[in-house]
Amino acid sequence: MTESISLVEAFKQTKYQIAGNGKRNIQILKEAFEQIDGEQDSDIYGNGKVIEAFQEKMATYLGKESAVFFPSGTMAQQIAVRIWCDEKGVKKVAYHPLSHLEIHEEDGLKELHHIDTLLLGDEAGLIGLEDVLNLDQEIACLLLELPQREIGGQLPDYKTIVEISEYCKANGIRLHLDGARLFEILPYYQKSAAEVCSLFDSVYISFYKGIGGLAGAILAGDKEFTQQSKVWKRRHGGDLISLYPYIISANYYFDKRISKMEQYYENAIELAALFNSCPFIHTKPAVPVSNMFHVHITRPKAQLEAVLEEIYYKTGIGLTSYLKETNKSSASFEVSVGDQYNSIPKDKLQEVFQLLQVKLK
Amino acid sequence: MTESISLVEAFKQTKYQIAGNGKRNIQILKEAFEQIDGEQDSDIYGNGKVIEAFQEKMATYLGKESAVFFPSGTMAQQIAVRIWCDEKGVKKVAYHPLSHLEIHEEDGLKELHHIDTLLLGDEAGLIGLEDVLNLDQEIACLLLELPQREIGGQLPDYKTIVEISEYCKANGIRLHLDGARLFEILPYYQKSAAEVCSLFDSVYISFYKGIGGLAGAILAGDKEFTQQSKVWKRRHGGDLISLYPYIISANYYFDKRISKMEQYYENAIELAALFNSCPFIHTKPAVPVSNMFHVHITRPKAQLEAVLEEIYYKTGIGLTSYLKETNKSSASFEVSVGDQYNSIPKDKLQEVFQLLQVKLK
Repeated sequence: MTESISLVEAFKQTKYQIAGNGKRNIQILKEAFEQIDGEQDSDIYGNGKVIEAFQEKMATYLGKESAVFFPSGTMAQQIAVRIWCDEKGVKKVAYHPLSHLEIHEEDGLKELHHIDTLLLGDEAGLIGLEDVLNLDQEIACLLLELPQREIGGQLPDYKTIVEISEYCKANGIRLHLDGARLFEILPYYQKSAAEVCSLFDSVYISFYKGIGGLAGAILAGDKEFTQQSKVWKRRHGGDLISLYPYIISANYYFDKRISKMEQYYENAIELAALFNSCPFIHTKPAVPVSNMFHVHITRPKAQLEAVLEEIYYKTGIGLTSYLKETNKSSASFEVSVGDQYNSIPKDKLQEVFQLLQVKLK
Repeated sequence: MTESISLVEAFKQTKYQIAGNGKRNIQILKEAFEQIDGEQDSDIYGNGKVIEAFQEKMATYLGKESAVFFPSGTMAQQIAVRIWCDEKGVKKVAYHPLSHLEIHEEDGLKELHHIDTLLLGDEAGLIGLEDVLNLDQEIACLLLELPQREIGGQLPDYKTIVEISEYCKANGIRLHLDGARLFEILPYYQKSAAEVCSLFDSVYISFYKGIGGLAGAILAGDKEFTQQSKVWKRRHGGDLISLYPYIISANYYFDKRISKMEQYYENAIELAALFNSCPFIHTKPAVPVSNMFHVHITRPKAQLEAVLEEIYYKTGIGLTSYLKETNKSSASFEVSVGDQYNSIPKDKLQEVFQLLQVKLK
């Protein structure tokens, strides 16, 4: 992805942005710590009230026996997969071709853990029950990402997950949930986090997607699993003497935003419909199933940049700071709805899409 | 190490403590962020002004071409060793038998990187030039820890380091510095950090020992080395979207305390002399060469606990919160001098050691 400096500049000068919870600035930390008593003790290498209380809170929320706080999801998920591979003595995991582990982690799973991967299903689609039933290699673990981020945040039917879960249980395959955006899909499924997580042996969740915290992750499962994960956390260099900057902010923004996921989801449906009303534009999914979707525009990137910049300066509303060139005549970007969407005056937003309809040709 | 709850309690209630910079509480973060503008941007996955500026500042301070901020030293050092092993195609590192990598990291180097270790020198002493000259196996990297923490923070003559460095250079062995306490030894050697670091191919430093920050580390070396270290940082799950809570606090406390290392060192010499004036007590080293030393007392742990508790309640001064039983008739603890030492009234401190002299029998 090459960034257009003028698009970034135009975006920075907008008053409103359709996506996200606001700027990633240091105020995010300062706000979370404003009401925190400075006399409170730090966590010390995974121990202490601040980390233990949050881990228990998340274990309860996810309906799991135990939970461990990690600095990153990259670390948490590699470790989950490693534990399941060691348990079975089979160094193979199956996941989607566009899994975070496959495309964003510099092959950590292979380079550090020597675990082979089986890419399951088609890049443009979801892993289906058929893909799992037709596995032709022995695997220790199947990793499902819900929603599948790189294809716009798509989701299988809930029934499919249940069937995959049952098949895995019956066939000695551990099922791991990449739940970076788990909170965001609960309104669509109309399930609690614990209900979804009950289908999985291990679960990872993140605190800087919809929740809008600083960083950090939780890995949850049964006690034996999380106990092992703490040993690996130390090996990875993730057992920091103090993780409280992430824990306290995760807790603060969890409490602030967990009840807003329904709103983000409904806003995403509304916003995607506005995009789909424009010529040459379609969203993936057509109707969002979480707070996120991808916008695809069948026009050349350079032409689109000029159109977007003009609209940003004219309306003060920013749609995206980047465009990803999908081919010579098409580009796309990602939208994840958060707090900011509802602060945009509706008439202003209408103006943006009226301009888009006129300018795209 | 089993902790005595009553000793911990007695220690907690003291007004003064001889070691450290104060409690590890959340005020450490709050103080560092008090004057920071909330509008300042976060770092994003290793990029951005806040991380780049600090990395450059540290590279300059250490006299190295380039520096990378890591969440932990455990991560930084495993990665340094891995890079040197890959470079030579020899998966073996030599270090002291009580190296942090050997005893505190759950064998991460072996389990994640499959690197064999050669324990060099005697557990109770330092690695000497002879140990290096007599290496009987091929190694890619030699790791030196200055000062050697687990034996009280001892140091070799500077000449020995120079000779080891020259030998390594001439024999294709990379020399890595575990400089967790590098700042603390500069007053003894009367050298700049850059002078010491010029003897090493790669250097790790920490920000929560003498500097008293939250957590975090810097790994420095030439550009090719640090560039590779960033790839491994991502693989380890250490390339967090935001590391600024550690970076900003590291920078704040570095500026606050870097000029105090001479004071801590002199205070440590004074304090060790007070301990050595008591019967049954000796320090390692006898005369400190940094801000740290170990206190060894040839009396049974339980008897010592009772003596210490009595002194803490009587004087309001805490010497240690724990005792490590070295054998049935002997115990020890570690002292790292920081800001707190100078705030203790001298007559009060005299009283503590007069009591120790009387009570130990």
